[in-house]
Amino acid sequence: MADYRAPRSDMDFLLHDVFQVADDWQQMPALAEMMDADTATAILDEAAKVAENLVAPNSRAADEEGVTWEQGAVSVPKAYHGAFKALAEGGWVGVTANPDFGGMGLPKSLSAQYEEMLCSADIAFSLYPGLTSGAIMTLDLHGSDELKAHYLPRLAAGEWTGTMCLTEPHTGTDLGIIRTKAVPADDGSYQISGTKIFITGGEHDLVENIVHLVLAKLPDAPAGTKGISLFLVPKFLSDEQGNLTERNAVSCGSIEHKMGIHASATCVMNFDGAKGWLVGEPHKGLKAMFTMMNYERLGVGIQGLGTAERSYQNALEYAKDRRQGRGAKATQDHNAEADTLLVHGDIRRMLLTMKAFTEGGRAFSTWVGQQLDRAKYAQDAEVQRRADAMVALLTPVAKAFLTDTGLESTIHGQQIFGGHGYVREWGQEQLVRDTRIAQIYEGTNGIQALDLLGRKVVGSQGQLLTPLLETLRAFVAENRNHKTWVTEMATLAAAIDSLEGVSKDVLQKAATDENWINSVAVEYLHLMGYVCYGYLWLRMAIAAEAKGSTPLQTKIKTARFYFVKLMPRIHGLVAAIQAGSRGLFEFEDDEF
Amino acid sequence: MADYRAPRSDMDFLLHDVFQVADDWQQMPALAEMMDADTATAILDEAAKVAENLVAPNSRAADEEGVTWEQGAVSVPKAYHGAFKALAEGGWVGVTANPDFGGMGLPKSLSAQYEEMLCSADIAFSLYPGLTSGAIMTLDLHGSDELKAHYLPRLAAGEWTGTMCLTEPHTGTDLGIIRTKAVPADDGSYQISGTKIFITGGEHDLVENIVHLVLAKLPDAPAGTKGISLFLVPKFLSDEQGNLTERNAVSCGSIEHKMGIHASATCVMNFDGAKGWLVGEPHKGLKAMFTMMNYERLGVGIQGLGTAERSYQNALEYAKDRRQGRGAKATQDHNAEADTLLVHGDIRRMLLTMKAFTEGGRAFSTWVGQQLDRAKYAQDAEVQRRADAMVALLTPVAKAFLTDTGLESTIHGQQIFGGHGYVREWGQEQLVRDTRIAQIYEGTNGIQALDLLGRKVVGSQGQLLTPLLETLRAFVAENRNHKTWVTEMATLAAAIDSLEGVSKDVLQKAATDENWINSVAVEYLHLMGYVCYGYLWLRMAIAAEAKGSTPLQTKIKTARFYFVKLMPRIHGLVAAIQAGSRGLFEFEDDEF
Repeated sequence: MADYRAPRSDMDFLLHDVFQVADDWQQMPALAEMMDADTATAILDEAAKVAENLVAPNSRAADEEGVTWEQGAVSVPKAYHGAFKALAEGGWVGVTANPDFGGMGLPKSLSAQYEEMLCSADIAFSLYPGLTSGAIMTLDLHGSDELKAHYLPRLAAGEWTGTMCLTEPHTGTDLGIIRTKAVPADDGSYQISGTKIFITGGEHDLVENIVHLVLAKLPDAPAGTKGISLFLVPKFLSDEQGNLTERNAVSCGSIEHKMGIHASATCVMNFDGAKGWLVGEPHKGLKAMFTMMNYERLGVGIQGLGTAERSYQNALEYAKDRRQGRGAKATQDHNAEADTLLVHGDIRRMLLTMKAFTEGGRAFSTWVGQQLDRAKYAQDAEVQRRADAMVALLTPVAKAFLTDTGLESTIHGQQIFGGHGYVREWGQEQLVRDTRIAQIYEGTNGIQALDLLGRKVVGSQGQLLTPLLETLRAFVAENRNHKTWVTEMATLAAAIDSLEGVSKDVLQKAATDENWINSVAVEYLHLMGYVCYGYLWLRMAIAAEAKGSTPLQTKIKTARFYFVKLMPRIHGLVAAIQAGSRGLFEFEDDEF
Repeated sequence: MADYRAPRSDMDFLLHDVFQVADDWQQMPALAEMMDADTATAILDEAAKVAENLVAPNSRAADEEGVTWEQGAVSVPKAYHGAFKALAEGGWVGVTANPDFGGMGLPKSLSAQYEEMLCSADIAFSLYPGLTSGAIMTLDLHGSDELKAHYLPRLAAGEWTGTMCLTEPHTGTDLGIIRTKAVPADDGSYQISGTKIFITGGEHDLVENIVHLVLAKLPDAPAGTKGISLFLVPKFLSDEQGNLTERNAVSCGSIEHKMGIHASATCVMNFDGAKGWLVGEPHKGLKAMFTMMNYERLGVGIQGLGTAERSYQNALEYAKDRRQGRGAKATQDHNAEADTLLVHGDIRRMLLTMKAFTEGGRAFSTWVGQQLDRAKYAQDAEVQRRADAMVALLTPVAKAFLTDTGLESTIHGQQIFGGHGYVREWGQEQLVRDTRIAQIYEGTNGIQALDLLGRKVVGSQGQLLTPLLETLRAFVAENRNHKTWVTEMATLAAAIDSLEGVSKDVLQKAATDENWINSVAVEYLHLMGYVCYGYLWLRMAIAAEAKGSTPLQTKIKTARFYFVKLMPRIHGLVAAIQAGSRGLFEFEDDEF
């Protein structure tokens, strides 16, 4: 596998030339003093070193070593211990945590870059700090002052790690039917009992204590999702100074043997009357996780992006080095018995598809990160309101489209290696296996699509679409006669029309056909993804032209590639959406 | 994992109601006496039992057990020993072998069904008899009488197995630059020296002897692919009675650790002056493998089909059993706290996509099988000529389109399981890992696409397309006003126009742009795949209507699904093909 090199210049280009995030920060009191462009550069340069030198070198061996379970104890790959300790000591576990509790407090537009680098380096490793970040945010937003004071500093310092315990053996997507129970105790705590599965980092030997955030039902809970409460359940109880006292009644029953992310411990967790504390209000556990979920889902999307970037770097190095066959006459190297893979059109098609998806995905994640920052920090109520709407709409797209294109990209990256791509030592097949989970967990991509089209678009009667459509249309209006991009702007304008058209159509059809939305949701999400990437590619191309530096020529060329080779996919998507539920619901159960 | 059940009734429907292969057999002296519809049914019923009871139950454990290498010896999973012995004793290793040498001599239209069942049951296992079949065919067509008499009966009986040794460390696709050498010895044999990699079944402990067919260069070989010769190199030399005498100088240096097909031994083979015999004429080794390659490539396509079928069966059972969320009001089951997955539109979309690709793929493989049989056995020279053209054109499509849609299908089948699809014990992720290799080996799918568009379509100045276009157009002409299928026939007619239109366009553009073909080949192959599947779905639907039995209603419904949800993908493909090499060749090497 090629050494991983963080795409730092592309990140700087996006942050400062395309999205001008530092201008935003200046308008935000919480960030204005701590963040500026130079600080951002310095932080990301350090983050790149962490990813490149501390994390990436372990990923291949860690995949082989995996995690092991023995009598309830779980061991992670040996190299992870030193890496995690260094990460914690550098403050990188608490990178997004509230500075009041020792966190770095980075805005998401910036931490998204750090997360991408960590995922390129090693998704499995990234999950230990990643889940901890999610727990920190939830606790920070909804925990009592007492819980926050006790747990947040230790989590932010990476002394303890966190988990999210949602799924149970009989249910993952449908959290309304969970069975884990919470019974109030006399001291204000609760006794938690039940079994949770697929718990990432549920048990491991990286740190001395693990803090579980657990969904459970109180005795008086109403049925369904409105009867779910959230509890904090530590592996070890601790005294006021944080010294561990006794082991809590929570244990790891087994770990899963999985397709990929072998070095991430995926645990069955048994709660046998374990002591826990309520986080947020009773029966409002799902709501307490909502804010965190937008960040986490973007984070999972970034996993797709990170693996795609790594796969691209490997494939590009291989394509420049490996010689097979002869290219077109003008490109032939007569000093060698064959030409490099790079001269072949189909290799270029695969590499450029990866490049267009990866740089487009990086732009998308930065864009959504900017919206999350505005939603959280903006002083202007209208700016905040619009950002909230954009976050609601774009988060499921970020999660699903970045991971679907992430899988496609890693498949291309593996294919470029031919038979060697199928062999473990080259690392390309690991990236396929590792990225595949990102389409499944944190809400499957089908669920993301339902969230987008059902809850967000149709649920708001189309209102949530408005800020996006306005943004896209304003961009086209401003650049319609741009001398370099007339053709692409027209294509984008037509694509926006298609998106708006099918949206209206679905709104209408959904009123009379209960199955219309769930029949077309995935294609709709993909359509929105391609349209947004088209917009972002032209934003990048125009910013690159404006900057005028030679290395940015490649942005302009890749934008052209995107419009001729990838954007046309929307035609098939639009047709499938227009067909609605037709073809899907004529089948009786025994006719499949 | 659900028990595998061979789709026997669909196979019978295709063979007898759609393609009427028994009518063909009656016209073929070599088959007329041995094969009829009843015999075919009896053979496939037995084959189904072999796949279901003997092979399928081992696949999950064999994936975990894998193959091991120790000091040159390779051990396969324990359960494979008994299964292979039973397979050999039942005559299933020599299922397509010449009856003169103890084979069953099945036509390909029939053996394609057997192969599919074996691949559904366990691809890794299927490769041991599969590679042996390829070696048998090559030897039968090009070996000397002496070599045939000595080796064929033992290979057909499954007493010995065969390999194909092509790839070398520095080259896979580009066989013109292989370095393995063959030096003539005084006794008419040759001394073979060199290293071959990715040799499936190169070493194992299933049988006492292994017969390698090895590409190598004679001392006077011209450069490139016209200087390659083919040699038979056994692991053990043997006396006239076939008793093993001495070990030949060929050894297994190591095995690959791979993404999937863990139970298939993928070997590095070292030839150190090993004794071998020329097969066919000097310098015509690649030509000697041509006929075999058409069969093998269809066989690899069938691997994609087989895994997709298995994944579909598992996913369907899970979707009927697993309850998550609520369906549309009319479909809700109020006796349960949630509805089955089967009520959800997106689950149906994934299941029906799998079903449409799988049954469409089975139709395609049977169709190509029928063409191979006509090419081999037909008495009428014109029938044979047309069949030859169809085989040349459709073989790369069978290999690449069935495996590309096979991957997509197994990904859907894994996704339907949610998190459980990522866990090894359910078997869905294994099918993804196993099927992935089929897109890579036996010529990557990119190479298949170049073969189709470059060598076949443009290479024949479009002539090879004629029989296909005529077949498609005759079908549309005959059924244009079919009362049930007017809309779909019009869609198919337009798709055929598109295929012909872009073909003409490429022919023209390729004359002036050397990179046009290799820039659009993959999309072109996919376009042809979707058009052919559209044709086959309508043939099946019309045959099903004609037969009028209730279970065949599902054929009609699936055909409708295919036309509204999958056929529209051609719009994006056509646009990408029309763009040609634009967007791909503007990049300098350092701009990627």
